[in-house]
Amino acid sequence: MSASTGQPAADPAKHPSSTSPLIPVLAVVGVGLIGGSFIAALRRAGRVGRVIGVGRNAQALARAQALGLIDDTASLADAAARADIILLATPVGALPSIFDAITPHLRPGTIVTDAGSTKQDVIAAARQGMGDRIAQFVPAHPIAGSDRHGADAADPDLYRGRTVVVAPLVENRAADVAKVELAWVTCGATVTRMDAAAHDAVFASVSHLPHLLAFAYVNQVAAAPDAAMRLALAGTGFRDFTRIAGSSPEMWRDIFLSNRQAILSELAQVQATLDAYRDALQSDDVPQLDALLADASETRRAWRPAAPTDSLEV
Amino acid sequence: MSASTGQPAADPAKHPSSTSPLIPVLAVVGVGLIGGSFIAALRRAGRVGRVIGVGRNAQALARAQALGLIDDTASLADAAARADIILLATPVGALPSIFDAITPHLRPGTIVTDAGSTKQDVIAAARQGMGDRIAQFVPAHPIAGSDRHGADAADPDLYRGRTVVVAPLVENRAADVAKVELAWVTCGATVTRMDAAAHDAVFASVSHLPHLLAFAYVNQVAAAPDAAMRLALAGTGFRDFTRIAGSSPEMWRDIFLSNRQAILSELAQVQATLDAYRDALQSDDVPQLDALLADASETRRAWRPAAPTDSLEV
Repeated sequence: MSASTGQPAADPAKHPSSTSPLIPVLAVVGVGLIGGSFIAALRRAGRVGRVIGVGRNAQALARAQALGLIDDTASLADAAARADIILLATPVGALPSIFDAITPHLRPGTIVTDAGSTKQDVIAAARQGMGDRIAQFVPAHPIAGSDRHGADAADPDLYRGRTVVVAPLVENRAADVAKVELAWVTCGATVTRMDAAAHDAVFASVSHLPHLLAFAYVNQVAAAPDAAMRLALAGTGFRDFTRIAGSSPEMWRDIFLSNRQAILSELAQVQATLDAYRDALQSDDVPQLDALLADASETRRAWRPAAPTDSLEV
Repeated sequence: MSASTGQPAADPAKHPSSTSPLIPVLAVVGVGLIGGSFIAALRRAGRVGRVIGVGRNAQALARAQALGLIDDTASLADAAARADIILLATPVGALPSIFDAITPHLRPGTIVTDAGSTKQDVIAAARQGMGDRIAQFVPAHPIAGSDRHGADAADPDLYRGRTVVVAPLVENRAADVAKVELAWVTCGATVTRMDAAAHDAVFASVSHLPHLLAFAYVNQVAAAPDAAMRLALAGTGFRDFTRIAGSSPEMWRDIFLSNRQAILSELAQVQATLDAYRDALQSDDVPQLDALLADASETRRAWRPAAPTDSLEV
């Protein structure tokens, strides 16, 4: 990825776009895969000026600076005072204290946005922490990830062809929402607007439940007396089914707690479906088993990812 | 893949090994991915003479012959009378009637082997169908697969680096077991001997349960009123977690019924683990949630597939 000095008169080769930066000063709290990839994509497009990195891990910030992602580092208070847009790209559990820390220092025109996997809980925390500055918070969720973590995993193509859900608040200025959406479009993403509650229900189903099921399944295998033999004989089905169980425990603890009600509701329905399989097996109900399996197999075969990996080869 | 005429004086270029064929006449019942890949690997190694294809679908057999996998086709009775080894590579539900059909025609030295995903049930069917010829049946299970099906998916490298479980019967002649094992080793596989009950318990856990969970999860998503929106927003986690839910319903119906007791036992334990997640979420028990997630994530990160895909690039 190309670094930028962030100077207004910077080398044109480093700023392929001749337009003025969309974001003169960008602050990113949490310069890992998500935040770092956002920076990398905006830098490549020449749509960002100076980038300030904020985080608790000084070594990680130094690495992000060495990679040319960020120009300098700052405290939350200083970043809030200097930035035009602040992207919060930490685990969602860290957000309440961040809202508290930045709000007293925000300039009136500054936009705060996030990349959290849940929205109702984050919005509640923002309302609590930002009070009458809540109009400055534009909630968002980029649907992208990777098995890799940290600034070294930052990839200017991470968001290309991916969906970013924006869940505007009634208080938001239309121009602020449009600016956040333009930033994500500049990263190559498609923006979808959704109500926060609808967002949380959908992602409880298609993202959080698969993670919970994969985690729980691996727990059960690991607890077996012959776990070592099981793991030694596991093949490609196991590999793909459990890939997401290797995800960050801290991040998923936060997501599970943050979206608890929607997840519990979906989990109860999945458990009822497992009961249907159990009953069909126990009672040798072959027609019921056939109907369940045919429905699942047809649904999965008909499904096409919104952004298949192959299409990312641009 | 190279075809073989199966003639003793065949072109040496088509028989790279100068040794006599390990299997002068091989019959394969079900010339799909599994059976076809077995043939392709043995042909490439020059260790098979004539190959007879058996199946209910004449068009599929014609395709296998056009691809050079099989030399000709025969009925079950004729194949049994002519073959030195018969590989049964059909869904396990078809095996009982096949054992009945072949047994009266088997020559005393002929070896019958299979590729079924369950072993106790297949062995019981073989004992039922083969009676006092049971010593001629050597049970086996190659741990390999693909999303592709049929003779066109046959791949001489499918078994390279993979494990094949052989579950010998007390009645088997040691030389017959060794011959089946040598055939799989010739295909590039590693052979592991296991007791049939231990095999079924292990594969109920690391293969059958992931499939059941993936099928049930997709059923639950498909049944939601907003299923279309859910599927439209599903990403790479969903893609990998549910890949195996696109598998053949007929094949998995047979496997689930064939290994019912072991699967029900594992399923009950997975459901208890899901209950533990539910309880931790409902009671806001963060230490318990952290412990579960850390255990699963560490187990999955430490896991290495027996034959990672990358190592297949030979």
